[in-house]
Amino acid sequence: MPQGKPLLVPDDGLTTRQRRLKPLVIVHTGPGKGKSTAAFGLALRAWNAGWPIGVFQFVKSAKWRVGEEFALRALGQVHEQTGQGAPVAWHKMGEGWSWIQRDIADQAENAREGWAQVKRDLAAETYRLYVLDEFTYPIKWGWVDVDDVIETLRGRPGTQHVVITGRDAHPRLVEHADLVTEMTKVKHPMDVGQKGQKGIEW
Amino acid sequence: MPQGKPLLVPDDGLTTRQRRLKPLVIVHTGPGKGKSTAAFGLALRAWNAGWPIGVFQFVKSAKWRVGEEFALRALGQVHEQTGQGAPVAWHKMGEGWSWIQRDIADQAENAREGWAQVKRDLAAETYRLYVLDEFTYPIKWGWVDVDDVIETLRGRPGTQHVVITGRDAHPRLVEHADLVTEMTKVKHPMDVGQKGQKGIEW
Repeated sequence: MPQGKPLLVPDDGLTTRQRRLKPLVIVHTGPGKGKSTAAFGLALRAWNAGWPIGVFQFVKSAKWRVGEEFALRALGQVHEQTGQGAPVAWHKMGEGWSWIQRDIADQAENAREGWAQVKRDLAAETYRLYVLDEFTYPIKWGWVDVDDVIETLRGRPGTQHVVITGRDAHPRLVEHADLVTEMTKVKHPMDVGQKGQKGIEW
Repeated sequence: MPQGKPLLVPDDGLTTRQRRLKPLVIVHTGPGKGKSTAAFGLALRAWNAGWPIGVFQFVKSAKWRVGEEFALRALGQVHEQTGQGAPVAWHKMGEGWSWIQRDIADQAENAREGWAQVKRDLAAETYRLYVLDEFTYPIKWGWVDVDDVIETLRGRPGTQHVVITGRDAHPRLVEHADLVTEMTKVKHPMDVGQKGQKGIEW
């Protein structure tokens, strides 16, 4: 339960409030559904808390997550118009990152460019919630150096929460993360021949 | 990947399109985080697809999910004002169900009243996505009859998707569901003494 008692109180010199407000690194991994979906669900909470949200999609195709993108962008507009909630920025590799004009042909370079921007944003404290969607893959494939990721996360200033999704999270990332959930497939309609459908899969 | 090929094509007499549009029963269970969060993430997709969304929170306290509630209600307002997306209805047991005036003291009766309304809404095809949050518990505790749940889900008309969240999903519910994901805790900050925080846990 969200507001339950912790199992033990650590001897870390922090007050309960400091410990409570500790910025988190959250990893959603495993072969099951819901890794990204839960990350975007977290973004709903962040929006309501007034935290600026930055989404970085580390996938080639921008075909997926369109439902989440439109809905979160709509929430960003609600913020612009009424002040309710928080701003939402959505960056995707598949269509060229938002901050560069050119489309990078090379996948690895593309992923590194995305990570370089995340580093700049973390240093500038641009957002309070980062969703690094499918970011486990560029790490797994060695396109982005896991040591650089850990070091950057460890040294990030202020109160910036980072959610990383994707299968096969690097063991060092799991080790560093504060909260790791593994989504396991128990049963999936594709197993019995059903295909994905709008509204459910994208 | 959402739009991948199914492993086998079943001999069920349905066309690919009929099979693709088959309404789903989705269960998010297990001891890990993200069960409800992923359900609310799915609601973002449904909203973008123009599907009316009905959320039923089967928990006593309405303190949780406030972030999701405000954000999804804001999206419901966007729909009212612009026609974009879909309407959102949010019902919670903790504050008395939206459709009744009185507050029911007895938990079991309260849960049964919620389920009775879900049945009425399914029969009337009120929504296209139902989020029955923490609904595994009233089933587990015998407050709501699992056979009635399965029979109702099996016989529901039209194209209505139902997502049920909570630990310890009843085996018969898992058996009936089309898509079941188990969220497993790998690591949680409460294990090392951290408490929940706004924006992350609620």
